[in-house]
Amino acid sequence: MQIAILLYDEFTALDAIGPYQTLSALPGAETVFVAEQAGPVLDDNRVLSLVAAKCLDEVRRPDIVVVPGSGHPNLRNQAVLDWLRAVDATSTWTVSVCTGSLLLGAAGLLEGRRAATHWLALEHLPRFGAEATGERVVFDGKYVTGAGVSAGIDLGLALVGRIAGDAHAQAVQLMIEYDPRPPYDAGSPDKAPADVVAGFRRNGLPVDA
Amino acid sequence: MQIAILLYDEFTALDAIGPYQTLSALPGAETVFVAEQAGPVLDDNRVLSLVAAKCLDEVRRPDIVVVPGSGHPNLRNQAVLDWLRAVDATSTWTVSVCTGSLLLGAAGLLEGRRAATHWLALEHLPRFGAEATGERVVFDGKYVTGAGVSAGIDLGLALVGRIAGDAHAQAVQLMIEYDPRPPYDAGSPDKAPADVVAGFRRNGLPVDA
Repeated sequence: MQIAILLYDEFTALDAIGPYQTLSALPGAETVFVAEQAGPVLDDNRVLSLVAAKCLDEVRRPDIVVVPGSGHPNLRNQAVLDWLRAVDATSTWTVSVCTGSLLLGAAGLLEGRRAATHWLALEHLPRFGAEATGERVVFDGKYVTGAGVSAGIDLGLALVGRIAGDAHAQAVQLMIEYDPRPPYDAGSPDKAPADVVAGFRRNGLPVDA
Repeated sequence: MQIAILLYDEFTALDAIGPYQTLSALPGAETVFVAEQAGPVLDDNRVLSLVAAKCLDEVRRPDIVVVPGSGHPNLRNQAVLDWLRAVDATSTWTVSVCTGSLLLGAAGLLEGRRAATHWLALEHLPRFGAEATGERVVFDGKYVTGAGVSAGIDLGLALVGRIAGDAHAQAVQLMIEYDPRPPYDAGSPDKAPADVVAGFRRNGLPVDA
């Protein structure tokens, strides 16, 4: 089972690593990081590069495609959108975290689907014919979309459970000791202090489309 | 404020990225990934490389040092242990996630300290004069140690709160939408099914020391 995790300029690191650290523990998984060009790809902090082992042309029929989001998603990258359409034609699961769902949407893959995204980007999903939900992980057919950044861990475990069963997913959860204890209860806009939420909402998310 | 995140052969990716995605949002933070040699460093799945921007000699006085763990921690790497002792002499915070605390211990930095680590590695901490706790995040003076893998997110947010205040930490939590909803409740050995726990305990963690 091949799992392809897409990297592109200004992706968000944790969006990619949450699914990676969970899905790569699937039995028989061969995980590959893929980008337009093989080699280092810089994240949206312009600080950290992850290395894509393969270029898009080298990964044509992954079983699972994972698309991380970005703080500045570029929905006009035709090479990426063409690749997403091509690999989605034969994928078993097409997956996104955070604003990665906007990329799936821009590729035309979420029409008539329910989908999740970063809470600040929910308003953009209907442009692509998708129904925005405030849920953390959404399964709609073979499309699995997650909310912002850290939701990729919950998504990864849920998908491991669907594919390999509950016991395997529980073993992965225990291996990564995922027994979360956030020191604050501010992880969603209905829980965070109103002024913190308002600060983010003033500027929104810069979506290039 | 310089934050140095150590990479070394066979580190665990999420151990490094949890603290990275939270601490790099500190006001005025300059985050740098550092390793024995600058360049790509392969993780413990032998799948993903993160790029170290600097070698150890180029990062001598970071304010915060972050040490990720590994599924196969090598506690005999003298170059890494020497560097840890050197930077700890002037750091404001010395931080580890998962079995990263065994590296801090092997460097002689946890003597008489309370510390956390991956649940499978707790038995190793007393060898270094440290008191093992089953807690998720432990502050003892300037030493902050986290439990396994995913605990680095909770640790990062807690440390952001100590340094920059609750409101800033809450904003970071909201930015990464950290409102965890694990699909199972198996993230610690007292919650996971007994046979899953026993399976891990049979083999333990291969610690090279």
